[in-house]
Amino acid sequence: MRILIDMDEVMADAIERFLEWYERDFGIRYTKEDLYGTKLHAIVPEEHRQVVKQYPHQKGFFKDLPLIPHSQEMIKELNDRFDVYVASAAMEFEYSLQDKYEWLDKHFPFIHWKRRILCGDKSVLKGDVLIDDHDFNLSVFNGRAIMFTATHNMHETKYERMNTWLDAEKFFDMK
Amino acid sequence: MRILIDMDEVMADAIERFLEWYERDFGIRYTKEDLYGTKLHAIVPEEHRQVVKQYPHQKGFFKDLPLIPHSQEMIKELNDRFDVYVASAAMEFEYSLQDKYEWLDKHFPFIHWKRRILCGDKSVLKGDVLIDDHDFNLSVFNGRAIMFTATHNMHETKYERMNTWLDAEKFFDMK
Repeated sequence: MRILIDMDEVMADAIERFLEWYERDFGIRYTKEDLYGTKLHAIVPEEHRQVVKQYPHQKGFFKDLPLIPHSQEMIKELNDRFDVYVASAAMEFEYSLQDKYEWLDKHFPFIHWKRRILCGDKSVLKGDVLIDDHDFNLSVFNGRAIMFTATHNMHETKYERMNTWLDAEKFFDMK
Repeated sequence: MRILIDMDEVMADAIERFLEWYERDFGIRYTKEDLYGTKLHAIVPEEHRQVVKQYPHQKGFFKDLPLIPHSQEMIKELNDRFDVYVASAAMEFEYSLQDKYEWLDKHFPFIHWKRRILCGDKSVLKGDVLIDDHDFNLSVFNGRAIMFTATHNMHETKYERMNTWLDAEKFFDMK
């Protein structure tokens, strides 16, 4: 069984970086609760919107992102049992590529380079399961689509949902 | 129809870079004819073999590679008619990612980031056609597999073969 796993908001906490950079630039610290069902650029003052949207296009945004809790241990378990691939729609962000590669080497060295995919549109990927936080990725995938809970997708009801990595075992009958 | 196109030896001439770096390091200029049916590391003196194998792992190897003749004009034509994706098994070479992205921006700006894929193993890709120079990529692909002629694959007979980009029209009935 081939399981494709998204990176941002599933393995790596990019929201945290948005909050951190916004605080750095404007002195206000939003919380993750502020972002339930929305994204940072949508709740900041209008005149900050473009700045926030540009963050992931800047060098260093994806560097040393914090881990989503329990992602390492649970993805290691999945990787021991199944064909796990990391599939990140990274191509929108030119400077993310190298940072994402290094991040995987550091935190997920057990995911071989053969099992790493940086792409644009995930409709091109073939697999049995996709674990992702975005409707636009899950909706174009042919296999089992599992939504990983992130602040922005809290109100989405279209998919089966993995709230935390600790739930993984029940999805894949790993006990 | 979705057409996936490999980069090295199909769009970009990486063999040229091997020959160039080898000459830089050892003062001998091999020719492409010397490489028919083989690869540079296999014909150089034994003591140079590891050096040559390490070239693509070094920074700058994939930077500003020359174009495969007629790739720009013909891929542009394909892109106007079909869903063209670039799919490069780049993950073996960490430092190639950024260089490949910039190279595409420079020479193939019409290929949107959504249509760019940097992966490891191409068995994960879904498409109707794959144009590639390697048996190990073509053999795991489910759709129409077209071998693009490169020095190393001259003697391969398993696939339909595109010798140059000028042949593309007859493969896709573009007249």
